[in-house]
Amino acid sequence: MTTEVEFQKRLTIEQVEEGNDLAPKFDRDGLIVCVTTAANSGEVLMVGYMNQEALKKTISTGEAHYWSRSRQVLWHKGATSGLVQKVLELRIDDDQDAVWLRVEIPGDASCHVGYRSCFYRSVPTGEGDHTLKFEESEKMFDPKKVYGDAPNPTIL
Amino acid sequence: MTTEVEFQKRLTIEQVEEGNDLAPKFDRDGLIVCVTTAANSGEVLMVGYMNQEALKKTISTGEAHYWSRSRQVLWHKGATSGLVQKVLELRIDDDQDAVWLRVEIPGDASCHVGYRSCFYRSVPTGEGDHTLKFEESEKMFDPKKVYGDAPNPTIL
Repeated sequence: MTTEVEFQKRLTIEQVEEGNDLAPKFDRDGLIVCVTTAANSGEVLMVGYMNQEALKKTISTGEAHYWSRSRQVLWHKGATSGLVQKVLELRIDDDQDAVWLRVEIPGDASCHVGYRSCFYRSVPTGEGDHTLKFEESEKMFDPKKVYGDAPNPTIL
Repeated sequence: MTTEVEFQKRLTIEQVEEGNDLAPKFDRDGLIVCVTTAANSGEVLMVGYMNQEALKKTISTGEAHYWSRSRQVLWHKGATSGLVQKVLELRIDDDQDAVWLRVEIPGDASCHVGYRSCFYRSVPTGEGDHTLKFEESEKMFDPKKVYGDAPNPTIL
């Protein structure tokens, strides 16, 4: 049996910033933002969102769960693709409105487009051209083979 | 003169995911989420938000600018504390609704509470106790000395 995860009420700034109470702040949609990095490389793989249930399941199971804003469902990452994220460490920030997962992923691929990271393009800074530059040269898998006819989650 | 940064209209999923157009998606508050990591360690320092102006200034100047949601102002990070973030790389994700900055910071401190990272506490996963554990043992600076009487940005 897993001990049930409970969230504490947010009472004071000192409690939230300097204390040991887990007292996450969910936004008006009931979500908290989550940064997920690859434990081996430190690379940011994705930014996702969790509702209360997703955060509790992530904590209790040690596998990343998100709230899919495009599909409006609890999303056990990897349930379709097999690319389950094993959580090595879960951190929360000063005001407890953001979480950071350090994860292990099988096959080193995470992004639904087929790349390792969702952040496969850079924006040149400073003067000159700011069109995007690809930082990953090839896809790690073929999304059509993995996801079939499932709708693309990107919303314009 | 810095070349003006322009954002393209979002027309197709292929353009947004597989193209070179910089076509960021701002949410209903006009903001895009930003993950900021330390270039030297890969550690996540903070999660912030940018409006169009903040993203354009970050791109054109190579120094991180955010939109402060608590103060409702454009926020040139480090203007008060001196802890300016120099952007070594700026990346954008597949659907262009999140950006990732890899930065250098002076003095290795970033968080307004005084720690290196805003994510100075972990949440134990799995069974048992889920109270927070401090992962940084001491503050890098004294926030009272740096910020004086400025109001704490944390909102309960």
